[in-house]
Amino acid sequence: MANTTCAHDPQVPDNTTNPQSDVAIAQAHPLLDITDIAQRTGIPDSALIPYGRTKAKVDPTQLSSRGQAKLVLVTAMSPTPAGEGKSTTLIGLVDALHLRNHKVAAALREPSQGPVMGIKGGAAGGGYSQVVPMEDINLHFTGDFHAITSATNTLAAVIDNHIHQGNALNIDPRKVTWQRCLDVNDRALRGVVTGLGGPAHGVPAETGFTITAASEIMAVLCLATDLTDLKRRLGAMTIGYTYDDQPVTVSQLGVAGALTALMKEAINPNLVQTLGGAPAFIHGGPFANIAHGCNSLLATRTAMSCADIVVTEAGFGSDLGAEKFFDIKARVGKLHVDAVVVVATIRSLKYNGGVAREDLDKENHEALAKGIENLGAHIGNIRQFDVEPIVAINSFPSDTEAEAHYLQEWAQDQGIRLVNSHVWAHGGHGGQELAEAVEQVLAGREQRTRSPQQIYDPEQGVEHSITTLARRVYGASEVEFSSKARKQLNQLKKNGLDALPVCISKTQYSFSDDPKKLGAPRGHTLHVRELIPRTGAGFVVVLTGDVMTMPGLPKNPAALHIDIDSEGSISGLF
Amino acid sequence: MANTTCAHDPQVPDNTTNPQSDVAIAQAHPLLDITDIAQRTGIPDSALIPYGRTKAKVDPTQLSSRGQAKLVLVTAMSPTPAGEGKSTTLIGLVDALHLRNHKVAAALREPSQGPVMGIKGGAAGGGYSQVVPMEDINLHFTGDFHAITSATNTLAAVIDNHIHQGNALNIDPRKVTWQRCLDVNDRALRGVVTGLGGPAHGVPAETGFTITAASEIMAVLCLATDLTDLKRRLGAMTIGYTYDDQPVTVSQLGVAGALTALMKEAINPNLVQTLGGAPAFIHGGPFANIAHGCNSLLATRTAMSCADIVVTEAGFGSDLGAEKFFDIKARVGKLHVDAVVVVATIRSLKYNGGVAREDLDKENHEALAKGIENLGAHIGNIRQFDVEPIVAINSFPSDTEAEAHYLQEWAQDQGIRLVNSHVWAHGGHGGQELAEAVEQVLAGREQRTRSPQQIYDPEQGVEHSITTLARRVYGASEVEFSSKARKQLNQLKKNGLDALPVCISKTQYSFSDDPKKLGAPRGHTLHVRELIPRTGAGFVVVLTGDVMTMPGLPKNPAALHIDIDSEGSISGLF
Repeated sequence: MANTTCAHDPQVPDNTTNPQSDVAIAQAHPLLDITDIAQRTGIPDSALIPYGRTKAKVDPTQLSSRGQAKLVLVTAMSPTPAGEGKSTTLIGLVDALHLRNHKVAAALREPSQGPVMGIKGGAAGGGYSQVVPMEDINLHFTGDFHAITSATNTLAAVIDNHIHQGNALNIDPRKVTWQRCLDVNDRALRGVVTGLGGPAHGVPAETGFTITAASEIMAVLCLATDLTDLKRRLGAMTIGYTYDDQPVTVSQLGVAGALTALMKEAINPNLVQTLGGAPAFIHGGPFANIAHGCNSLLATRTAMSCADIVVTEAGFGSDLGAEKFFDIKARVGKLHVDAVVVVATIRSLKYNGGVAREDLDKENHEALAKGIENLGAHIGNIRQFDVEPIVAINSFPSDTEAEAHYLQEWAQDQGIRLVNSHVWAHGGHGGQELAEAVEQVLAGREQRTRSPQQIYDPEQGVEHSITTLARRVYGASEVEFSSKARKQLNQLKKNGLDALPVCISKTQYSFSDDPKKLGAPRGHTLHVRELIPRTGAGFVVVLTGDVMTMPGLPKNPAALHIDIDSEGSISGLF
Repeated sequence: MANTTCAHDPQVPDNTTNPQSDVAIAQAHPLLDITDIAQRTGIPDSALIPYGRTKAKVDPTQLSSRGQAKLVLVTAMSPTPAGEGKSTTLIGLVDALHLRNHKVAAALREPSQGPVMGIKGGAAGGGYSQVVPMEDINLHFTGDFHAITSATNTLAAVIDNHIHQGNALNIDPRKVTWQRCLDVNDRALRGVVTGLGGPAHGVPAETGFTITAASEIMAVLCLATDLTDLKRRLGAMTIGYTYDDQPVTVSQLGVAGALTALMKEAINPNLVQTLGGAPAFIHGGPFANIAHGCNSLLATRTAMSCADIVVTEAGFGSDLGAEKFFDIKARVGKLHVDAVVVVATIRSLKYNGGVAREDLDKENHEALAKGIENLGAHIGNIRQFDVEPIVAINSFPSDTEAEAHYLQEWAQDQGIRLVNSHVWAHGGHGGQELAEAVEQVLAGREQRTRSPQQIYDPEQGVEHSITTLARRVYGASEVEFSSKARKQLNQLKKNGLDALPVCISKTQYSFSDDPKKLGAPRGHTLHVRELIPRTGAGFVVVLTGDVMTMPGLPKNPAALHIDIDSEGSISGLF
């Protein structure tokens, strides 16, 4: 349908043959004033806090709900270096629904500057399916990440100062679990020693920095229901242990108020627009491999009180962001997902079938047939959450008709709804087929009762939760706990934290904890390295395999290609 | 005059007997919409970038100058724990001139969050002379400090990554001079080792963090004349040396564009309002002890293109901020100062005369007579810059009539214009006497030709500049260079950097480099520890005595007293 529309509609941009950079497309687009977007979205003036002409924060306490909005979750097959276009597909779907006169809004995560300067460049969609102003969204935005960084490092300074100034709480400096954070990709900050130089300069400590997107305060911001809940969660964070192994919290240090004051603006969701003029709430940005991977609950709820359909995302595949969406975010926020879109590309399927990156443009049925198992496994996972997935194939010029045909046959065999999406090249006009499929699923959904959408019951304990996820979602047959993790399991029980949900940190490239095992591996062992209770976020972080909470820069980082001219126009953000 | 006015004007707040906290006063004040402030100030809509309803950034490229504004610089005697109220006096003076129907604007530095969470609490004036919204100004504001922190740490990551990924530029990891920064008071970050954990985690390095206010990018932001100059300066920053001692710059690393893109919003001055409704441009925040201590040149220039009188400040006393204002900022920006206000309090004079902090409320003529030498030395310094100072005594309830009388007599003897200021308690109404004195000096100034206002000529070399300042401004008789500093002097000559102005880092508590030598010490020795060329800022940082570029928190930090209620109302910021 999308292609037919395109051929006859003079307003539809046809840019498949004339590729431009994302930033060039975004800059060429005339933006509406954010007050206009707010007005159309029914957001009253009293709730709007403008940040320049095209960005705003929205105060959710000033909004009243319109009633029950439908919630669509966008996830993807396992990511590959080829790129899948999950955000692009989401934004295109929103614009497609917007064109079809639905009252629709997007709820998305904020990009992290670390990867923007590293591998990815921008992270605000692509082509003709972007949220704008993309340069602002990618760089600083409204300062939410910076507020989190500030609060995290202020707390670290207060902890070290407490120990330095007499240590009234009897904190064991060797058992401080609170780490500083920065929104950079900086491998040199993973392992550091601080407090050097003598007694005037604090107590030496072996510690490290995480990237801000993986910090606990990021998770707290994304799960808080209001300012009071935010303060309660910040106060409940565990920063380390005393010499006699008692946990020490932020409240005991007396800075829950100061940290909450630092998060006063950050708690309000940000409003921007899609290229199609639909409202997009972009707020919070935890990574889905090393954190829980969903935009803030407040942004999703705010979007749901302004629209009939909200399209939201969770990072990486069904094994990471989507699982955490259901088991962590939806549990806290009492959300129910009405439809799931799984984004895939023919290139990524071939990559999962063993094709090298440089050969992805070549037709290869064998690899496609093998790689499709990855998609199949993600679909199986989504079905466990009692919702029927729609597969959106994000089209690339190199896709052949034979490959597309093969995919359709496969989908029919499996009883899967599979549609092609052309939103990168055509925006909302290229997403009509996908929008129609979503409409059908939502319509069918109305007849059904709402079943629980969680995989595990946290009450059965952390070990059970991890084992359940490993078997039912990752396809593992065994879970191996390191001796450190075993000790930590016992400590969790001792401290009454064994019924918390789990937030598993795992490589995004494989269902297993080995990034090289592509496709749909089965029978593998999940290696649990470490367990960290995040008592403010309300979950236990489970580190598996070699996953690291601070990325590094590649040899040729994106920062080398970003530039700005004397008029302030930015280039090199892709 | 101020007191007479007060007695008969029902609108004048009289709060000497009912002290409220600064934040409570600020919160009780109805703020004007920032668009109204902009309109009254003649700032066109096209130049205004609102950040919420009461803050905005102003794009200077969208403004045209109104002609030659008069520039008033506010400095102070040497600071003491008693507090002098420099910002309070400045803001009160602006409101006083505003009441007298002058087209007046303030140009001020942004507070740093480190001290806000540490010793000071808020830093946006006090009592009935504040800039508002004070909570926002004190916490995050419009994100300028965070942009600087981001750019600084992104550069650090790029440097370490360059070395890790093959080190094409042959950088000696032991000679990297670029340090990371954070806007916290965190002594544990002064000396750190990074890159631990093995080859996958970078090259181990001994380094440290400075507070953001003392970073080179802060200085660059504050001295840049426009975006092009900002990019040139960022590119010119020296990050370290090669194995054969050649300096390496940001341009060689290829990230001048990316760093400038990160500073795109931060370069625009911020506009807020005083409690009296006058415009205040608050932008940039280098400390005056460990940095150059003046708000951005762009903010001063923007204020000067919107007003007839601009009142600006420089941190701490004439030996630090004011000297750097003339010798660094005014030199770069071709500014001419028409009047200088030196703020003092009777309490601080007594403290400089040897009275303990707890006894400052008691009348003590002997201590006053001794401590007044400190004020006298600051006045002598200001006169060297070819401008006649006005002394503003910031009144405290504990000041006695006899003490005030003594001060007046002293001033008359010395031919000094001395006025009393009551702006803390009465806002602009309490600053009428001061405003009148400023008017008189500005009127007298019109008859005069403009002489150069610098103490030293950088062309004569760094050693000469340091020695000149030490003798003529600090009252030292000798300068002692450490052997490290001697070597660095030679390296500066070798690298063609010997004609840069100097930015001396020195304790603020004394004219000497020993914080315990109060009053007006003479004949002491200045100890120069280290010289660091800041080729982007365009000056050589000179570290003297024991001054540190990363403060620590006190035993009872302000963070413990800051709180926020469920409605978002902040308390505990003083």
